[in-house]
Amino acid sequence: MLTQEEVGAAKQRAAAALAEAGIALTPGEHAAIEVADFGLSRLDEIGLELVVYVNTERVCAKELVLFPRQTCPEHRHPPTGGSPGKEETFRCRRGVVYIYTEGDPSPNPACRPPDPESGAFTVWHEIELRPGDQHTVPPNTLHWFQAGDDGAVVSEFSTMSTDELDVFTDSRIARETVVRAT
Amino acid sequence: MLTQEEVGAAKQRAAAALAEAGIALTPGEHAAIEVADFGLSRLDEIGLELVVYVNTERVCAKELVLFPRQTCPEHRHPPTGGSPGKEETFRCRRGVVYIYTEGDPSPNPACRPPDPESGAFTVWHEIELRPGDQHTVPPNTLHWFQAGDDGAVVSEFSTMSTDELDVFTDSRIARETVVRAT
Repeated sequence: MLTQEEVGAAKQRAAAALAEAGIALTPGEHAAIEVADFGLSRLDEIGLELVVYVNTERVCAKELVLFPRQTCPEHRHPPTGGSPGKEETFRCRRGVVYIYTEGDPSPNPACRPPDPESGAFTVWHEIELRPGDQHTVPPNTLHWFQAGDDGAVVSEFSTMSTDELDVFTDSRIARETVVRAT
Repeated sequence: MLTQEEVGAAKQRAAAALAEAGIALTPGEHAAIEVADFGLSRLDEIGLELVVYVNTERVCAKELVLFPRQTCPEHRHPPTGGSPGKEETFRCRRGVVYIYTEGDPSPNPACRPPDPESGAFTVWHEIELRPGDQHTVPPNTLHWFQAGDDGAVVSEFSTMSTDELDVFTDSRIARETVVRAT
């Protein structure tokens, strides 16, 4: 659970990161920046800031902001009602982001998970993305990612987002951010 | 038909516009910038420069560069084999772009088509996009667009691109750029 002040401060930080990346938002988009703490109340370590540009039944596009070393926890997008599951392409715009996904584990990964003993980070095939680099994660494939020391801005191009259907390895995770009334 | 020199110069101009917009490309993407003259050999008036980031069976994302007052001619994306046709969202990143689409004609449009007498520009509902603004064009809907006096960089988020299936109002148009051997 985050306080309104914490959410407001995270929105301002995310907006500043997007502005530094040269990405223009409308005032409405600025106000609607989403702050996801995955229900763990440790936003700086485990969290994600998002601007959703479009999310129709067919296409979704977003900007993701990661604070320095902030981690999006491990999850997959399972098949649902006739669809094979969400397909996502991540394109780094600023900073560095390390994506971990299924495949041969990398011997010397650049990241440590926030909870090494939690068992919630199980895939270790590392893909390093710098500005201009991108990677497509197929449907129903486990992945997690972490920004480098200076944070990252990452564009996501995908099929429809249905966050509530995502399957997280850490069973404590809830995708919906709860803001504490003050 | 364009000469290799014309294509090379257009690629350099497009790359410069993308760099000014803060958009990083890999060397491979830089080399693969697509220059489309729609077979009319009047690139500065009727044309488009593109970087295709991803184009799978489900999702496509591109950057479009328009030179000052350059026009993408009127077309639609028809239904094909079980799909309702391509759905496109245009998001302005830099400059100004005017999209013309089906709907009430705008009384004082900001653009003149390159060939007013050609009959190839039939929809006049104007949507002005400045950085941060976007518009979604539904499948099978006529549209054309032109940049303002300083050109434009526009992101496109869509379903799969199948350019060869596009239907242009101007029957002289061929989507494939032909480069003259020198």
